Amino acid sequence: MLNFLDRRVIAPGGIIFREGDQGDQAFIVQSGTVELCKFDQPFAEVGPNAIFGEMALIDGAPRMATARAKTETTLIVVPRGLLDKKLKGVDPFVTRLLSILVQNVRSMASKL
Amino acid sequence: MLNFLDRRVIAPGGIIFREGDQGDQAFIVQSGTVELCKFDQPFAEVGPNAIFGEMALIDGAPRMATARAKTETTLIVVPRGLLDKKLKGVDPFVTRLLSILVQNVRSMASKL
Repeated sequence: MLNFLDRRVIAPGGIIFREGDQGDQAFIVQSGTVELCKFDQPFAEVGPNAIFGEMALIDGAPRMATARAKTETTLIVVPRGLLDKKLKGVDPFVTRLLSILVQNVRSMASKL
Repeated sequence: MLNFLDRRVIAPGGIIFREGDQGDQAFIVQSGTVELCKFDQPFAEVGPNAIFGEMALIDGAPRMATARAKTETTLIVVPRGLLDKKLKGVDPFVTRLLSILVQNVRSMASKL
């Protein structure tokens, strides 16, 4: 299903997005490792097959962390339009759950 | 859509669920206020129309907090089977997003 999506290849140390940026893409790690950082300190690592940056697809709010390639990294780019298409016809209770969960992540992240 | 669901009326101070309990229900507050507590300390309040306890519907893991009625509270009970029904036929990317978001909330809550 993901074969038709764009790829990005990021050199070690390269910034994928910065905290506070507007975002309308999520990323699936195809190979490599990405660090999620606050104040330049990594607090999580994301490896192959994992998704990051997905909250901007759901609520369109600014990035809550900076994403930086730890090694050379290949990413599959998931544009917001793809999620919108997949959410078409989905029960509103499900989309509400997605929004609530994103709110909860953001609210907890602000307390860390 | 929610008219056919069960209600629960909780007296002030009444416990709805405890941290560590197994759960297979979420709740929508119809009236009243619920406090979410860790180590007996409230860290969030939930008021009318808000949902809580939704993560157990998605991943079935134990409750990460205790929910206690602050005032007399009427809750609409959302059983897991309802979400399962609403997720039938939904694109796997959407259900994966739900799981990831729940994981992220739980992982952040453990660092608070």
